[in-house]
Amino acid sequence: MEKVNRSILLVRRPKGMPKAEDFKLVTNSIPTIKEGELLIRSIYLSVDPYMRGRMRGIKTYVDPFQLNEVLTGGIVGEVIESKNLSYKEGEIVEGRLGWSDYSVSNGDNIRKVDPNLAPISTALGIVGMPGLTAYFGLLDIGKPKAEETVVVSGASGAVGMTVGQIAKIKGCRVIGIAGSEEKVNYLKNELGFDETINYKTENVLKSLKSACPNGVDIYFDNVGGEISDAVMRLINFYSRIVLCGQISSYNMEKSVESPRVQSQLIQRSALMKGFIVRDYADHFEEGYTQLGNWVKNGSLKYRESIVAGLENAPKAFIGLFEGENIGKQLVRIS
Amino acid sequence: MEKVNRSILLVRRPKGMPKAEDFKLVTNSIPTIKEGELLIRSIYLSVDPYMRGRMRGIKTYVDPFQLNEVLTGGIVGEVIESKNLSYKEGEIVEGRLGWSDYSVSNGDNIRKVDPNLAPISTALGIVGMPGLTAYFGLLDIGKPKAEETVVVSGASGAVGMTVGQIAKIKGCRVIGIAGSEEKVNYLKNELGFDETINYKTENVLKSLKSACPNGVDIYFDNVGGEISDAVMRLINFYSRIVLCGQISSYNMEKSVESPRVQSQLIQRSALMKGFIVRDYADHFEEGYTQLGNWVKNGSLKYRESIVAGLENAPKAFIGLFEGENIGKQLVRIS
Repeated sequence: MEKVNRSILLVRRPKGMPKAEDFKLVTNSIPTIKEGELLIRSIYLSVDPYMRGRMRGIKTYVDPFQLNEVLTGGIVGEVIESKNLSYKEGEIVEGRLGWSDYSVSNGDNIRKVDPNLAPISTALGIVGMPGLTAYFGLLDIGKPKAEETVVVSGASGAVGMTVGQIAKIKGCRVIGIAGSEEKVNYLKNELGFDETINYKTENVLKSLKSACPNGVDIYFDNVGGEISDAVMRLINFYSRIVLCGQISSYNMEKSVESPRVQSQLIQRSALMKGFIVRDYADHFEEGYTQLGNWVKNGSLKYRESIVAGLENAPKAFIGLFEGENIGKQLVRIS
Repeated sequence: MEKVNRSILLVRRPKGMPKAEDFKLVTNSIPTIKEGELLIRSIYLSVDPYMRGRMRGIKTYVDPFQLNEVLTGGIVGEVIESKNLSYKEGEIVEGRLGWSDYSVSNGDNIRKVDPNLAPISTALGIVGMPGLTAYFGLLDIGKPKAEETVVVSGASGAVGMTVGQIAKIKGCRVIGIAGSEEKVNYLKNELGFDETINYKTENVLKSLKSACPNGVDIYFDNVGGEISDAVMRLINFYSRIVLCGQISSYNMEKSVESPRVQSQLIQRSALMKGFIVRDYADHFEEGYTQLGNWVKNGSLKYRESIVAGLENAPKAFIGLFEGENIGKQLVRIS
């Protein structure tokens, strides 16, 4: 265990692809807690694509990260000292905390994690924010019906692989788009996706046409860009396009023009909706319970890519945009 | 009354803006009817922007018009002969019929119009397809709440002016975008729109910013293009974009590129949905009744631009794309 508290700061707003020099590791003493607070030792840290938006310095749905301050993100950790009646030493918690070895919380921004339900790392993945994102986006916006065709882009990411599996649970035909043979093989052989498309080696539109002979009823979009343009050409009447992420554009300095989707949506009476998981905050408990049960009974499988060491968190974050991870990308801190 | 039956054919698929030479007037004898049929004398003919799509020869939500066949569209007429037990001579009916002096129907594609409810011409306008389009699009997709800000493009058209007035009935703040001083004055002075923007003389984004200090909650889009790009920059969290038409692009031979809307929708958890009025066919009776009552009690005002003579129908249709009409554009046939 570290005797000091290391933290990672954002010291420069990335231009294009984030670089190691945009981040800085600093060392301080372990913080002390006041009445009502608790001290958390970080175990796992989650790197997520949405964080790129917060590095931009423009207010969107979350405040931007401030320069020269500690980055914050999903952390699973252990309570090692508590002056808060609701939390005891030894309990496992999850919340949006600093990219640090140790964090102080007043208990408001964390939740308890049951280590008997599933491995605690899943509180950042399939039974955490990415799992809830898949669950609410697919079920509330996508409203899948049995026999429908569901296309997922970014299908081998933490959200995408959960979307595909929930769609299978609902009786849909599922097509996953991902960027390597290893990824598409995993989706098809391990997770039971019906068809997969490797967008780096295949003509996406052509492969989609052959994989979706009845068109596309639901498109769960994690990536945007030309992959989405291709999917849009095959949407059915009354189709639903669930806008979760646009990772293909997160590192672009200028927005790229594209065919207008409005006419396509009118011609198919189709719906397109953006969302963030926080829109469903009132229903998180339902989501955690259902996802936890599906993991427990084997209906939902998951995979994690784990890098060791807080100092490697920036590298793991950058890797998200290089397509390195299969499943949830985590950093193991202690 | 004509002793012959004149009809208008589509003889050439328009390239860009439709031209008079794309149409042809032909003369035939008045058709005779068989058992179960009725003969209708056309009184009013409706020209509608969506018809441009049917001239393209590509199947969308309706089959394309066939070349050298009689165009079809909304017609209000009088039953002048009936061998159908459900219809009597002298009754007024509305339906999608030929652009002709006389039409034959088996009764399936028409509905009866009550001349005591409102002038029969409104069966093609505010108590007809455009009214229903406004009603269902705004209420079912837009879901207006009191105090919300509603922006309508194409606001002086048959759909747009109805949308704005229903939004006012629902207690919203309404901003209408139209293309002449006469139009915006009408919207503001006669229909009670809160603010208007003349897109031909004003900087739309700048005027929108000043007219919508609290952002845009609902955008009812009839036009698309750069006007919509400007509105999209001001959408609020959980806003709803109702896609009704994209008249700015109907005469374009190639689709024009534009900023991708997907990121904007994600950043605001916003919804964008296309629709056509037929999606609500099961609820038309509710719509006709509500619209008729609002017209009767003075809550809904309307305006018509009427051109005389079947031979002028192509000119009236072309005029839709030149921004000539205020309110519903009709052709009086007899």
